[in-house]
Amino acid sequence: MLQLDDLDRAIIRLLKEDARLTIAEISDRLNKPESTIHFRIKKLQEKGAIERYTIILGSSLKPKHIAFLVLKVEKPVIEDFLERYLEYITKTLSMLPNVLMVAKSGDDKIVAIVGEDTQERLDRFIEENIKSIPTLKEVLVFPIREFKKGEELVGFLAGI
Amino acid sequence: MLQLDDLDRAIIRLLKEDARLTIAEISDRLNKPESTIHFRIKKLQEKGAIERYTIILGSSLKPKHIAFLVLKVEKPVIEDFLERYLEYITKTLSMLPNVLMVAKSGDDKIVAIVGEDTQERLDRFIEENIKSIPTLKEVLVFPIREFKKGEELVGFLAGI
Repeated sequence: MLQLDDLDRAIIRLLKEDARLTIAEISDRLNKPESTIHFRIKKLQEKGAIERYTIILGSSLKPKHIAFLVLKVEKPVIEDFLERYLEYITKTLSMLPNVLMVAKSGDDKIVAIVGEDTQERLDRFIEENIKSIPTLKEVLVFPIREFKKGEELVGFLAGI
Repeated sequence: MLQLDDLDRAIIRLLKEDARLTIAEISDRLNKPESTIHFRIKKLQEKGAIERYTIILGSSLKPKHIAFLVLKVEKPVIEDFLERYLEYITKTLSMLPNVLMVAKSGDDKIVAIVGEDTQERLDRFIEENIKSIPTLKEVLVFPIREFKKGEELVGFLAGI
């Protein structure tokens, strides 16, 4: 893990809140010279602390109903095929705009985050596009009722 | 859902990739006048399409080992206490830096994303800080082996 001092942390926190802040504004808020802020941000980028600058989509563009999914893949007779199944399913899911995130978990599972505008459409999407996938043994659905931390991941991951 | 035309979408895609792009650069890339780009971004912000500008933390600052968790909460004798349990557990978890995301799911479940630098530390965190929570009936752990889509959520959600 990279070692950061208090100034580095303060700069990162400000940029996480608003990445459009100028060097002058950050310098003002932290009461440090602009040259120092400029140098620190350059260093943070060089050291791989900041990957990139992006936007979070707002409520009018992000899905309102979210669910976490756990898919259990059937173990094939020829065991070598299991990884192929996982690869095929995750790749297929990754191309669907309603799938915000998808990953392989352990030997035979897939986790995903899916979203839609209404609960009815989300349920239908899970029935028609997820549960219908061949080679799946089980689909666990965990509908999100209330985020306590990390809610902005929806606007971050949402496609357009 | 907000109606966007092709130009709106193109602007949003560029800003998602690099939110530091200037109006002049976006205008150049999309071959449209700067005044048009300026007006469109203003409108997108007014209509709640863009929530905010932020940074994604890079590899030197984000946890390398991630797991999805599903916590099942025991139904208390006095049923009204169930929501209090959920509230208490999600609030407690939300304050831990290793917890990237936490949410209530359905009547009696909690889903979370946790991360640590090494697998050993992640396992220990789950054993000591999650499985030890009273009133939990079951903790399902889904370690992420390979992201196929949405991997950047780690650098987005990571705290410092």
